[in-house]
Amino acid sequence: MIDSSTAEALESVSTATLSAQLRRRGIENAFLEHLTPGQPGRRMVGEARTLRYTALREDVFAERGGGMNAQKRVVDTIRTGEVLVIEARGDLGAGTIGDILALRLQRRGGAGVVTDGGVRDTPTLRDLGIPFYFGASHGAVLGRRHVPMDSDLPITCGGVLVMPGDVMCGDAEGVLVIPAALAAEVARDAVAQEREERYIAEQVDKGESLDGLYPMGEAHRKRYECWSEDGQDEVS
Amino acid sequence: MIDSSTAEALESVSTATLSAQLRRRGIENAFLEHLTPGQPGRRMVGEARTLRYTALREDVFAERGGGMNAQKRVVDTIRTGEVLVIEARGDLGAGTIGDILALRLQRRGGAGVVTDGGVRDTPTLRDLGIPFYFGASHGAVLGRRHVPMDSDLPITCGGVLVMPGDVMCGDAEGVLVIPAALAAEVARDAVAQEREERYIAEQVDKGESLDGLYPMGEAHRKRYECWSEDGQDEVS
Amino acid sequence: MIDSSTAEALESVSTATLSAQLRRRGIENAFLEHLTPGQPGRRMVGEARTLRYTALREDVFAERGGGMNAQKRVVDTIRTGEVLVIEARGDLGAGTIGDILALRLQRRGGAGVVTDGGVRDTPTLRDLGIPFYFGASHGAVLGRRHVPMDSDLPITCGGVLVMPGDVMCGDAEGVLVIPAALAAEVARDAVAQEREERYIAEQVDKGESLDGLYPMGEAHRKRYECWSEDGQDEVS
Amino acid sequence: MIDSSTAEALESVSTATLSAQLRRRGIENAFLEHLTPGQPGRRMVGEARTLRYTALREDVFAERGGGMNAQKRVVDTIRTGEVLVIEARGDLGAGTIGDILALRLQRRGGAGVVTDGGVRDTPTLRDLGIPFYFGASHGAVLGRRHVPMDSDLPITCGGVLVMPGDVMCGDAEGVLVIPAALAAEVARDAVAQEREERYIAEQVDKGESLDGLYPMGEAHRKRYECWSEDGQDEVS
Amino acid sequence: MIDSSTAEALESVSTATLSAQLRRRGIENAFLEHLTPGQPGRRMVGEARTLRYTALREDVFAERGGGMNAQKRVVDTIRTGEVLVIEARGDLGAGTIGDILALRLQRRGGAGVVTDGGVRDTPTLRDLGIPFYFGASHGAVLGRRHVPMDSDLPITCGGVLVMPGDVMCGDAEGVLVIPAALAAEVARDAVAQEREERYIAEQVDKGESLDGLYPMGEAHRKRYECWSEDGQDEVS
Amino acid sequence: MIDSSTAEALESVSTATLSAQLRRRGIENAFLEHLTPGQPGRRMVGEARTLRYTALREDVFAERGGGMNAQKRVVDTIRTGEVLVIEARGDLGAGTIGDILALRLQRRGGAGVVTDGGVRDTPTLRDLGIPFYFGASHGAVLGRRHVPMDSDLPITCGGVLVMPGDVMCGDAEGVLVIPAALAAEVARDAVAQEREERYIAEQVDKGESLDGLYPMGEAHRKRYECWSEDGQDEVS
Repeated sequence: MIDSSTAEALESVSTATLSAQLRRRGIENAFLEHLTPGQPGRRMVGEARTLRYTALREDVFAERGGGMNAQKRVVDTIRTGEVLVIEARGDLGAGTIGDILALRLQRRGGAGVVTDGGVRDTPTLRDLGIPFYFGASHGAVLGRRHVPMDSDLPITCGGVLVMPGDVMCGDAEGVLVIPAALAAEVARDAVAQEREERYIAEQVDKGESLDGLYPMGEAHRKRYECWSEDGQDEVS
Repeated sequence: MIDSSTAEALESVSTATLSAQLRRRGIENAFLEHLTPGQPGRRMVGEARTLRYTALREDVFAERGGGMNAQKRVVDTIRTGEVLVIEARGDLGAGTIGDILALRLQRRGGAGVVTDGGVRDTPTLRDLGIPFYFGASHGAVLGRRHVPMDSDLPITCGGVLVMPGDVMCGDAEGVLVIPAALAAEVARDAVAQEREERYIAEQVDKGESLDGLYPMGEAHRKRYECWSEDGQDEVS
Repeated sequence: MIDSSTAEALESVSTATLSAQLRRRGIENAFLEHLTPGQPGRRMVGEARTLRYTALREDVFAERGGGMNAQKRVVDTIRTGEVLVIEARGDLGAGTIGDILALRLQRRGGAGVVTDGGVRDTPTLRDLGIPFYFGASHGAVLGRRHVPMDSDLPITCGGVLVMPGDVMCGDAEGVLVIPAALAAEVARDAVAQEREERYIAEQVDKGESLDGLYPMGEAHRKRYECWSEDGQDEVS
Repeated sequence: MIDSSTAEALESVSTATLSAQLRRRGIENAFLEHLTPGQPGRRMVGEARTLRYTALREDVFAERGGGMNAQKRVVDTIRTGEVLVIEARGDLGAGTIGDILALRLQRRGGAGVVTDGGVRDTPTLRDLGIPFYFGASHGAVLGRRHVPMDSDLPITCGGVLVMPGDVMCGDAEGVLVIPAALAAEVARDAVAQEREERYIAEQVDKGESLDGLYPMGEAHRKRYECWSEDGQDEVS
Repeated sequence: MIDSSTAEALESVSTATLSAQLRRRGIENAFLEHLTPGQPGRRMVGEARTLRYTALREDVFAERGGGMNAQKRVVDTIRTGEVLVIEARGDLGAGTIGDILALRLQRRGGAGVVTDGGVRDTPTLRDLGIPFYFGASHGAVLGRRHVPMDSDLPITCGGVLVMPGDVMCGDAEGVLVIPAALAAEVARDAVAQEREERYIAEQVDKGESLDGLYPMGEAHRKRYECWSEDGQDEVS
Repeated sequence: MIDSSTAEALESVSTATLSAQLRRRGIENAFLEHLTPGQPGRRMVGEARTLRYTALREDVFAERGGGMNAQKRVVDTIRTGEVLVIEARGDLGAGTIGDILALRLQRRGGAGVVTDGGVRDTPTLRDLGIPFYFGASHGAVLGRRHVPMDSDLPITCGGVLVMPGDVMCGDAEGVLVIPAALAAEVARDAVAQEREERYIAEQVDKGESLDGLYPMGEAHRKRYECWSEDGQDEVS
């Protein structure tokens, strides 16, 4: 579980900053690609609940596609604060979730949906207000391209590995995954990094050159240490 | 010709619902892919008028590209309620229609434009208010990539076969084709399906599980039969 | 340098019209492809300042990636009215510019940014109000995919060759390049072309057929010569 | 286990014929796409042993990538007649198996390798003579793009769902999957279908029209029933 | 009909040379892209017989897909020296022709097959010895992706417009289309161009610089005029 | 310059082994992607001579495309042992080199050609016997898509950064780049690695498990130290 101060910190910083923090820890592959934010005005933070679709095969779909399939079981058991993350192999030729399941997920306290496949009933999902990140709109149900196979396994979504329980963070730029074990420290350091970047932006805004400022050289480092956010240099 | 009650029904339901109705009739390939709605706020319903572009070949363009070419002839003869559907082979490297032809089409009563190529003068088309679905914006005229070849033939647009006279339906999700012969029954059943889904959504909104509800089991089926849309269960 | 009347003319016409003018001069490859306008409501006109990224190679990045690299040097020396144009080989897997550099560029009077790679901190760039055209949003810094190699060379961006000093023009449709030597005449003729197209649109709006009107035949040419924009045919 | 007469039958017919037999049973998605036969001269028949790679994430690779990882465990326990089928998400940027593991697999009696990623040491695999189907050659080890995650799960390879234990059949055309439960009947009917097609080909070779012959009409059906393969019509 | 001296000339020159001759006549789009020669050792020259497939739609396939469909009708009426050219929209997910139809085409004197879709029974087609150019091998029949729609129309194949009756020329490099009206002159000039290039190659082979030689300057032009192919400069 | 013992070592090992050696030194991006070996039977080792093409723009091509352009100048000054490496942005729509320039390059002692664009006259290049790695065959000359812009700059080819003077190594698997400064040590360690892998392969061939062998554990490490290639354990 993400503690509330971590969650709050993660919501206050951008995915760009979080990406930089992960890079400093050697993680280059964290930002999901080829996805669009369905609700650009909303932040999303939550734990990954994973769902895996394979390619459609008619005989297997007949067994596993109908009724309370893997998709419905996972939505029906989503927990507060979880983000449903769907592996759809980047196949945009069918919806991978629609309005009714999104509503159910929202009512159960789900924090959002991430899929590298299509979304069905996109206009309704927008009205629901639930954050979602998706590959494209598509009117068809998932059985056109997918078999809902299993859940709670490591998956690849948007070209990125997501482990169950990882932290998914989204903003208007996109969505990235933070390994669960790193969430707290990444959140803390991201807040510090953004404060530093506000200092830099302030100098740039005043007309300063990037040289020695970004990345920060010694002189600016000293000035930054005495800087307060209200814009006045602190008197030591 | 689509009769007015069919048209009205089609305008009242989503393309997602229509896609499901076509699937029940064995038609999986109906929702056009890789297209963007140019006017997400407007619905579109109309009969397909088809136009086919082939790849550019300079000697053939010299003969068929200029003057009252196939493109202009079809726009100049569009009929009230028709949707112009253009096969551009998914080539986004040129506009396939621009502001003046779109205006002409609109003034003749055309119901919209669908193209899997580029659109030129996209900002002006937005101002005109005519519904359009397109691959991308591109400033170049069609002669950069296409020869306007012929019209009123079966074509492939957005990966989907469109026969002249088929019914094109579009909403903020995208656009799909309904075979002319099926339009009336699909429209009728789609209205019924959406009523059913409103019942389901209402239960989900109240906190019901998906199990036995979506798809509907017997118990809910009975309750649904007595349900009225104002939200109170009818007294029998 | 673009003189002010040319700049004003270029800002008053669409990229679609400019594309047509270039085609008349034998230039087919001018409109950048696969890019999205970051600020659809703003026009952009300025001279190209070019920056070239190559693919990442770790040993070369170690030498050239850090500190005042080619990217920062070019941003730090941007001149009033210049548009930064970045060759990123269409690789969308990393940002090619972020908020701080965009701010610096804006403060130095830069007129916009064009990149066929990713942009980082897209929400902040939107707030800054600087025009930008880009491939996609991505949270990662450029070192994930690129080495900032050199500047002020001919580059390929969005599939189009841009020479340093060429004129970049952007609107809500997209962005195109005008060879510096042609900018003045293209601007002038584009203004004339748009006046002609307003005449044509006015006729179409009244219900005229395209035949003999678009392209203009002799009869309409004569009427056009006596036409004034306020909508009344001039009395000679 | 495939019994020996089924295996023999499967080896005697083409993947094209098998694809037709599956289609008759409602299975359209069986032929793996975007793969190349590494040994066009050799047939391959065997049971699928599945291996799943996810996208690389550096922290997870550190835990699961080295030593006796999922890849090595599955190769080290391959059984006689099994075909190793690897899900690599169509990512061609790294090898998914190399010469030493292919040799180990061959020595254990493995029947072949199918991967929708890269193969490393392709020239050596060719010398080994083991059948393989692959996306491309690539010199890099799998850690450049993949985490070897798990095995013996349903996977998607070449756009097709493969269940553990399904039958993989390959020839110079490519490779397809036959659901285990259908293998015997598909094999039997494929042999019959090919006999029929030899009759048809014989008629075509003599100059017969396709009309009434392919598909076979009644007249040819009767003649076929008396036909023997040595080319002489049988005397009843 | 191509006269025999033109056909002979076309068979003697490369598609690269023919491409250059078409470029001199303003035709840039003639070489079909993304196709592989099925029989690299054989030349192909013949007149285009066109066949058009649209995307699959199940209701339309039911009407037009079976029996003596457009595909079989065109194959059954192929004329000596014709090349069957199939528009399959670059869709590689199904065969567009198989062994029996290829055999029928060959027996009727067809000169070859060109398709930008899949070929089924590729190994058998190779054995038949008929020249073919194709997108990929695929075991499935065409009904998996296509409706055989019509024939003898202008089509786009491999990104190139082919008019019925155009001349198709193929070698181990690939295949290109020559507009029927240009075939004779292109053939004649291609023969002359290749002779010139043999002269140039001879000089390069002796160690000459490219400067003034390729393209030929005046000095070499004079020497070339006296050059005979046996390698000795002619005595005038 | 590569010394002769380094060159000899590089020719004796596979690109797969070299890729592993570079990875150990932190270089992940070295193997060029989406290229095909034109002469699978020949090894290639040489120093990179770079040539850069930009996208075609007609006005710039008019100035720089003809006569002794950048392409011809670099070919005409190639030095013994150099490999020409061409940046063509992965555009396969035109040849980037043809038979006459390849012959010139070969006569000057060039060691090979690498291009991520098309090759023209592929059959003739095959006959010349010069090693080449390329994207596809295409009959058109480069002016259809490219402007030959400049040479001897860092370029991106096959998705990989190549610096002038780097070492290009190719085999039947593909081609990779070795930074000049690392060539000697990479060559030496690659020879050692392959010896070790021959030991491992020998054990696998005898039926050993991979566990503790690949990667080598302590027990095998000791045995390896006493191993001699003739297959008999050495007596110390």
